[in-house]
Amino acid sequence: MPRNPDWVMALRPSGPQGSAILATERASSTIHVDKLADFMFTTEDLQRRARILSILDADPVFNKTATYFLGRIERIKAALARGKRLQQLTVKHAWSDDEYQIAYDLIGEPTPYGLHVGMFTKTLREQGTPEQQERFLQKASTYEIVGCYAQTELGHGSNVRGLETTATWNPDRKTFTLHSPFLTSSKWWIGSLGRAANHAFCMAQLIIGRKLYGPHLFLVQIRDLKSHLPLENIHVGDIGPKFGFNTMDNGFLLFNHVEIPHGNMLARYSHVDPVASQYIPATNHSLVYGTMTWVRSNIVLRSGRTLARGVTIAVRYCAIRRQFQDLDATDSKDENQVLNYSRVQYRLLPLLAATFALHFTGQNMIRMYQANQESMKNERLNRVGEGQIADRVMLMSSADRLAELHAASCALKALTSTTAGEGLETCRRACGGHGYSSFAGIGSTFADYLPTLTWEGDNYMLTQQVSRYLLKTARHVVRPVEGSSSAGNGAATIMKDFRERRNAGATFDLQGEDSHIVDAFAWRVGFLTFDALRRTDDEKQSQNSLLVDFWRLSTAFAQYAVVKAFYDALRQPHSHGQLGADTAEVLRKLFRLYSLHTLSNEASSFLASGACTIAQIQVVNESIMKLMREVRPHAVRLVDAWKLPDWQLDSSLGRADGRVYEDLFHRASELNPLNDIIFDPHPWSKVLFKNHPQTVSSKL
Amino acid sequence: MPRNPDWVMALRPSGPQGSAILATERASSTIHVDKLADFMFTTEDLQRRARILSILDADPVFNKTATYFLGRIERIKAALARGKRLQQLTVKHAWSDDEYQIAYDLIGEPTPYGLHVGMFTKTLREQGTPEQQERFLQKASTYEIVGCYAQTELGHGSNVRGLETTATWNPDRKTFTLHSPFLTSSKWWIGSLGRAANHAFCMAQLIIGRKLYGPHLFLVQIRDLKSHLPLENIHVGDIGPKFGFNTMDNGFLLFNHVEIPHGNMLARYSHVDPVASQYIPATNHSLVYGTMTWVRSNIVLRSGRTLARGVTIAVRYCAIRRQFQDLDATDSKDENQVLNYSRVQYRLLPLLAATFALHFTGQNMIRMYQANQESMKNERLNRVGEGQIADRVMLMSSADRLAELHAASCALKALTSTTAGEGLETCRRACGGHGYSSFAGIGSTFADYLPTLTWEGDNYMLTQQVSRYLLKTARHVVRPVEGSSSAGNGAATIMKDFRERRNAGATFDLQGEDSHIVDAFAWRVGFLTFDALRRTDDEKQSQNSLLVDFWRLSTAFAQYAVVKAFYDALRQPHSHGQLGADTAEVLRKLFRLYSLHTLSNEASSFLASGACTIAQIQVVNESIMKLMREVRPHAVRLVDAWKLPDWQLDSSLGRADGRVYEDLFHRASELNPLNDIIFDPHPWSKVLFKNHPQTVSSKL
Repeated sequence: MPRNPDWVMALRPSGPQGSAILATERASSTIHVDKLADFMFTTEDLQRRARILSILDADPVFNKTATYFLGRIERIKAALARGKRLQQLTVKHAWSDDEYQIAYDLIGEPTPYGLHVGMFTKTLREQGTPEQQERFLQKASTYEIVGCYAQTELGHGSNVRGLETTATWNPDRKTFTLHSPFLTSSKWWIGSLGRAANHAFCMAQLIIGRKLYGPHLFLVQIRDLKSHLPLENIHVGDIGPKFGFNTMDNGFLLFNHVEIPHGNMLARYSHVDPVASQYIPATNHSLVYGTMTWVRSNIVLRSGRTLARGVTIAVRYCAIRRQFQDLDATDSKDENQVLNYSRVQYRLLPLLAATFALHFTGQNMIRMYQANQESMKNERLNRVGEGQIADRVMLMSSADRLAELHAASCALKALTSTTAGEGLETCRRACGGHGYSSFAGIGSTFADYLPTLTWEGDNYMLTQQVSRYLLKTARHVVRPVEGSSSAGNGAATIMKDFRERRNAGATFDLQGEDSHIVDAFAWRVGFLTFDALRRTDDEKQSQNSLLVDFWRLSTAFAQYAVVKAFYDALRQPHSHGQLGADTAEVLRKLFRLYSLHTLSNEASSFLASGACTIAQIQVVNESIMKLMREVRPHAVRLVDAWKLPDWQLDSSLGRADGRVYEDLFHRASELNPLNDIIFDPHPWSKVLFKNHPQTVSSKL
Repeated sequence: MPRNPDWVMALRPSGPQGSAILATERASSTIHVDKLADFMFTTEDLQRRARILSILDADPVFNKTATYFLGRIERIKAALARGKRLQQLTVKHAWSDDEYQIAYDLIGEPTPYGLHVGMFTKTLREQGTPEQQERFLQKASTYEIVGCYAQTELGHGSNVRGLETTATWNPDRKTFTLHSPFLTSSKWWIGSLGRAANHAFCMAQLIIGRKLYGPHLFLVQIRDLKSHLPLENIHVGDIGPKFGFNTMDNGFLLFNHVEIPHGNMLARYSHVDPVASQYIPATNHSLVYGTMTWVRSNIVLRSGRTLARGVTIAVRYCAIRRQFQDLDATDSKDENQVLNYSRVQYRLLPLLAATFALHFTGQNMIRMYQANQESMKNERLNRVGEGQIADRVMLMSSADRLAELHAASCALKALTSTTAGEGLETCRRACGGHGYSSFAGIGSTFADYLPTLTWEGDNYMLTQQVSRYLLKTARHVVRPVEGSSSAGNGAATIMKDFRERRNAGATFDLQGEDSHIVDAFAWRVGFLTFDALRRTDDEKQSQNSLLVDFWRLSTAFAQYAVVKAFYDALRQPHSHGQLGADTAEVLRKLFRLYSLHTLSNEASSFLASGACTIAQIQVVNESIMKLMREVRPHAVRLVDAWKLPDWQLDSSLGRADGRVYEDLFHRASELNPLNDIIFDPHPWSKVLFKNHPQTVSSKL
């Protein structure tokens, strides 16, 4: 459209300017932003992020100006260009996997290469034999091979055992035949498969001599390396537009009796003896198990940062936005900052507290994972030379610890990703009408994040496994099992404590020591576990009738773990010194706000467990209102501590400098290609656009 | 892409086919779908819908095949074409407003004309003088004038008194000057303004001789009727892409001292005497008040149908989708229908119950509105000839009834639109991975519906007004006011009953008579109101500190109203005869499921109110599980009764014939334009697409 006329350019927002408001907000809090950021991320990590940001920001390929205006084909084209440039930069700057990941997060949208790096080469490294790695890894690292990980099918997602694609062993030719017997066997949702990949790791049911050996991974070339067209008897394509994630080419894949060499079955663990045509099973399932735990742990780790995007935007905007006079003011006629209304605080400040809760929980989850990896490695080293049988013994002895890690990662993946996903939408709505604009920057993050609630174990499905673990732990506490060390883990301690005190009952002083709050959350887990145990073991209620209770139980366990992790993080010996007393005290209030708000929302089961009384819940509700008033003055500085750069947020409402209205107006009036089009609004005219829109889109 | 090869065309889904599964589902329920649909909608309404559907379905302009693949400019172009065609059909078939609205709903996306019909002509009819109607109405009906309703500004939404656009009276020239003094004065979010409208009703602060008279409506021509370019000193355009609603050209508008004639101020009520340059205030605000109530009542009415879209899709797909073996089966190896898992039922079946609850609530809301209109008309007729003063007296006497209607519409708008909006996302997630595909048909409905939670009164904001009404009612019950009839309304009855019984306490038999459930919901409203009254009147707590309590109170009041409306609908004398005993009994179970599920979710405040005990909540939770088992066999027939045609749902997952996988595959492989593009995946190649995508988009 014609540039804004001069009289428009001369206009500025009425009242105090956004920049002045944010300056006042920042001046009225004693939070030490840099110290808090260092405490959360370490100085090194922050510097590394800043370094990578400056590289991306300077590169025109990563310019985000047009993104919100583009259709899917234009967006995926831009994303492909970004994926290429990201790889070039990775080589140029010799970025590590971590640094690559930081860049990927800053760019803020999936690229069609996403699964090549994230899953294809990782799978090759972990499940390929040394020979297979030699054959494929170099080509994968130079992108001669672009790969994906093809597991889910049109008809089967969660239930991997139900996959229908077959890989039948041909003893004469020493090959496997990949085949899709049904329409529902089509691989589906496979990231990077639709248009980008030329190879796929394909999960297929291994068949040797009519006998089924379950799902295994096979490497299949699917497209020609020169023409990039599908190979014969392979039907592959993109599955179409989605609610979000539209820069990724999630794909489908069907095989019509496609033959691949024996060496293309990933064979580090189980494999087929080509001479005897015999299946050799894996002796060690722990690494596969470990990969899933690793992926989930990372979801837990990133949940806080994802939620912080929405909270940063909403807190800044609600500080700047003013609407109506203060309800209790008798003199002032000035409009009140929206963030001053308790109704807005109630939606945003517990979520602000949750960002920190999830952050410390994520760090804890990763530490737990790494400690486990370390101790597994040590155990293995101690047994070097004892061979496969020793390996098996080792796994037995570490099975309990693995089970605990697995249960924690499942429970926390479900809770933290649900909190982040739903929290983003709460933030969007708290921004009022402008939250609905793409320029708010929340909707796209929400839409792209939502699959996290479904993949790597649906958030409801996972709770079943967590409950099974908790019930098993409770059974062991009631009737200890010889040789099992599970009695020493965190869940077992909860069960034992609960069991010892249940008859005496519990009284937790929720207004006093913070540790009492943690204890109340633990008590509730104990109560719900033994209640479920009674239903399942004593009353023999059907499993199906207990699934809702299991979901509640797993959620309670995860909530306990988050509250505990937040509590522990603030009790680290160095935390006070590092943060300063004021900042540490505000964090403690955030801990109480998160915990008590959760407790209030879940009052029913806390009451049923006897962890508190109805009168206490009323007091808790009053405490929440008081904590919100106390946290309010620090809100802007607290989101500043997340150090999310404007470039990453790409949000008019969330700008660190507060120029909300200028930015909304600039994007709408100067960047918006729809404004180059002139409608013919008359219903009986066949002309729709009076000028030609082609010239318009090409400017993007 | 090349059409699917023959070997792909020959494939079909494994296991029992979707069509067979839905046939079995339908055969195993005794629900009488047609009788239930007639009961809900009347036969005439269903026939009318079918007639309109057949017209739209036959018209290529409304073909939806490409919709999910289009970018915004292509979509708005298609929507403009549809808007034109819709107007042509309206003339051709002489459709009434209701019939136009049915067609609009079936098309399922806003058109750029949406606000012309919905708000512009409506406002002219209601607030224009007979002369103004004569001048503009004819031109508006032929679309010579295409209009919009410009109220919200960049800096002000909810707070209409804070609007900044000014309309200054020029006594010499007998004109008004419209002006936008700040950037934040820009009109913003105005539907149909961005590209389509050539006129706008503009809400601006009336100024006469430096004195401010508050916001009033002015008709301004903004674009040339021939060129459709903006007039001088007017800056207007589209505000850019949004989370949804992208076929609507929500716009911005700025004035640089634009002069309009005296006759362009809407003057049916308040107006300016051009001779005396004097402001003549309105004597009757009730109609403006009435419009807002009408709009909200319609949101309440439509909430059930909107939610039913998601529930229909999710219930059908979860009946067809099978995953894992039955957890309690000892023999069968068949995979279990996902809808059989209690964890899935817990998410979907209370929402299925909610669709009916919202439907009957909406009908009740509209009846209440119409009864009020009727009695206002009668009162006015009775006073004909008594002039303006009589009008004023009439308004006083009907003020209480209007206040009740207003409060009910606010409370129910907030609750029902939140239920529908959040329920759609729950349905989407319950569909697992495929729910994320655009072809699921839920995401787009969700995204387009979300503004409903914010506009016409933000769902949190509204609760403040509702609580003010409830508190006032309670005060009147405690200290009756002479001449006020409010003591006879629904809320007052609740307050009186609660006040009489509060010392004796309440025991509601939630397992027995359904009326006890309704009474428990009423009791909770009474408790929360008097609790808030104590805080505000006795303890003088600040208003701001009570906003969260007010939100809870308003929600409780709305939940009571929904439960009551559902209960009353099933108690209509003819309902049993019309429905048949089996269907009536299932509806009664849905009533209990909705009510008890709500009660369980809100247990904390029911417990605090003393309406039930912790032990009762446990029993309620067991009842919910039992009710879900009982409702489950009827789920598919119950969604069938909503009679939502496939054409409207536009969903692979929700097809009435169950051909889920065939449709997903067809759309992905045969309609998806991305599959015509060949990537060059090598990171060091500058080529992104090996072929030219232009040829691709043009096919759409």
